[in-house]
Amino acid sequence: MEVATLAVDWGSTNRRVFALAADGTVVDSARDDRGILTMAGGDFAAEAAAMRAKWGDVPMLCAGMVGSNRGWSDAGYVAAPANLAGIVAAVHWVEPGRTAIVPGISRESKDRADIMRGEEVQLLGAAAAGLVSADAWLCQPGTHSKWAQLQNGSLIDFTTAMTGELFAQLSRSGLLADGLDGAVHDGAAFREGVNAARGGDLLARLFGARAALILGKRGRSIQASYVSGLLIGSDCDSRLSRDFAGARADGVDVLASPELGGLYLAALDELGCKARLVDSHAAFLAGITQIWSMLQ
Amino acid sequence: MEVATLAVDWGSTNRRVFALAADGTVVDSARDDRGILTMAGGDFAAEAAAMRAKWGDVPMLCAGMVGSNRGWSDAGYVAAPANLAGIVAAVHWVEPGRTAIVPGISRESKDRADIMRGEEVQLLGAAAAGLVSADAWLCQPGTHSKWAQLQNGSLIDFTTAMTGELFAQLSRSGLLADGLDGAVHDGAAFREGVNAARGGDLLARLFGARAALILGKRGRSIQASYVSGLLIGSDCDSRLSRDFAGARADGVDVLASPELGGLYLAALDELGCKARLVDSHAAFLAGITQIWSMLQ
Repeated sequence: MEVATLAVDWGSTNRRVFALAADGTVVDSARDDRGILTMAGGDFAAEAAAMRAKWGDVPMLCAGMVGSNRGWSDAGYVAAPANLAGIVAAVHWVEPGRTAIVPGISRESKDRADIMRGEEVQLLGAAAAGLVSADAWLCQPGTHSKWAQLQNGSLIDFTTAMTGELFAQLSRSGLLADGLDGAVHDGAAFREGVNAARGGDLLARLFGARAALILGKRGRSIQASYVSGLLIGSDCDSRLSRDFAGARADGVDVLASPELGGLYLAALDELGCKARLVDSHAAFLAGITQIWSMLQ
Repeated sequence: MEVATLAVDWGSTNRRVFALAADGTVVDSARDDRGILTMAGGDFAAEAAAMRAKWGDVPMLCAGMVGSNRGWSDAGYVAAPANLAGIVAAVHWVEPGRTAIVPGISRESKDRADIMRGEEVQLLGAAAAGLVSADAWLCQPGTHSKWAQLQNGSLIDFTTAMTGELFAQLSRSGLLADGLDGAVHDGAAFREGVNAARGGDLLARLFGARAALILGKRGRSIQASYVSGLLIGSDCDSRLSRDFAGARADGVDVLASPELGGLYLAALDELGCKARLVDSHAAFLAGITQIWSMLQ
């Protein structure tokens, strides 16, 4: 099949390219580590030319951190509430009619500011494709976990938590690093961490994890699962007690890989909230093809 | 005055030596960076000999991480509740009658483990010297902030929070590092952070701090104060809502330098709790001389 469009999910550390036929079928795809942070001073136009040399000289629609002030060109933010039509109206053209970047979404209130860039395509795409209801509570876990509320297919509010980044930082250096080299999986230790995270006090619970290891109360092999449970549990418990309280009754749709998504499903289950896994790649493709078709 | 004893506060990164006369008067003191982590594979006996060569061949009483499994010799832990008599009974002699290390204190319950090593001398010393009441709520902020409850001069329970370490880690690398290079001081931004920390949700508040910077809602120059307020506020708010709820009525004694202690005083004030600063060096000296005299 002939390639009609290139859809590029261009993040901080990774890049995923989908070569799409005119009807949206994925003709080819590739994933590499040409994220914007690995391209310091990089020539984005040359990268785009290289992709076109490989897959065809066709229009290209990019999303993600490539549209940040550290990326190719600043695509700005659309203020929430935002739907696909609002995103389409604000699409940022690097080369008119030929190369575009999807804007991010911001939200501001008296007491809290938040931003997303890239996740909006998945979140709104999931609803557009019917992968989730038009009224839904969505979670997209990761380095910076996104939680979003949809109403009538519009993203009306969202919250980001530094869950994944904090786990990475604590694993790399500091008091807890020694002991966090094990694999993380759902099990008794993970769920113990989730329950210990209830009601806040993360700073003390983290130190307590180290103390338990030193006192021989917890084995090294399950320490990473326990600390992951603390962090993911803290994220989920905060959401369900605060801005995502409505999700307790409705359930949460988790857009993620089965591995990471499975941990969030386990944490939400332990906290008494129904959740199900949604294919995040399908959601991205649905969103980006929908945006592209609305641009025509 | 003749030096009769050497008291050594020997921590992870720093070491403080007090050369004491028989009546407890400080004849000389010194502070250096010969903490145990900077002495990997170090010869502690040689370090002790060097201190004696400088100040006199007298008995030496050490406290702190020098008594951990990474230090000179493992001095173990005394289980809370613990008072000075319990500490004295468990003092670990490296050379009988000549060189000793004070044990740490541990606490274990079904849901939470904690340890301290070094802080017990200050905390119990503060009460022994009358710097604080025998029934008091104490806070010793730092890399790992200690909160302790005293009853009848006995340390009955305590909690450690990774407050200072997390600020250091976030300043060093990751999403928030860019913007945390400013000075931290009490002011509107610090107190805004304290209030934003109420009720938990630290993971989301941290990301929100970055979003506010990017959206131009907060200036770079006050970002470090705001994030410090978030972390210290989170620590104080968790304590006052949980294990330190009793301190709301009684007030908190903060053992710290005026700089760091001042931030905790400001946070506790903002959260509606009275607090006062206590001289932490005087508390350490009172504790270590009391332990030494009880050993005679």
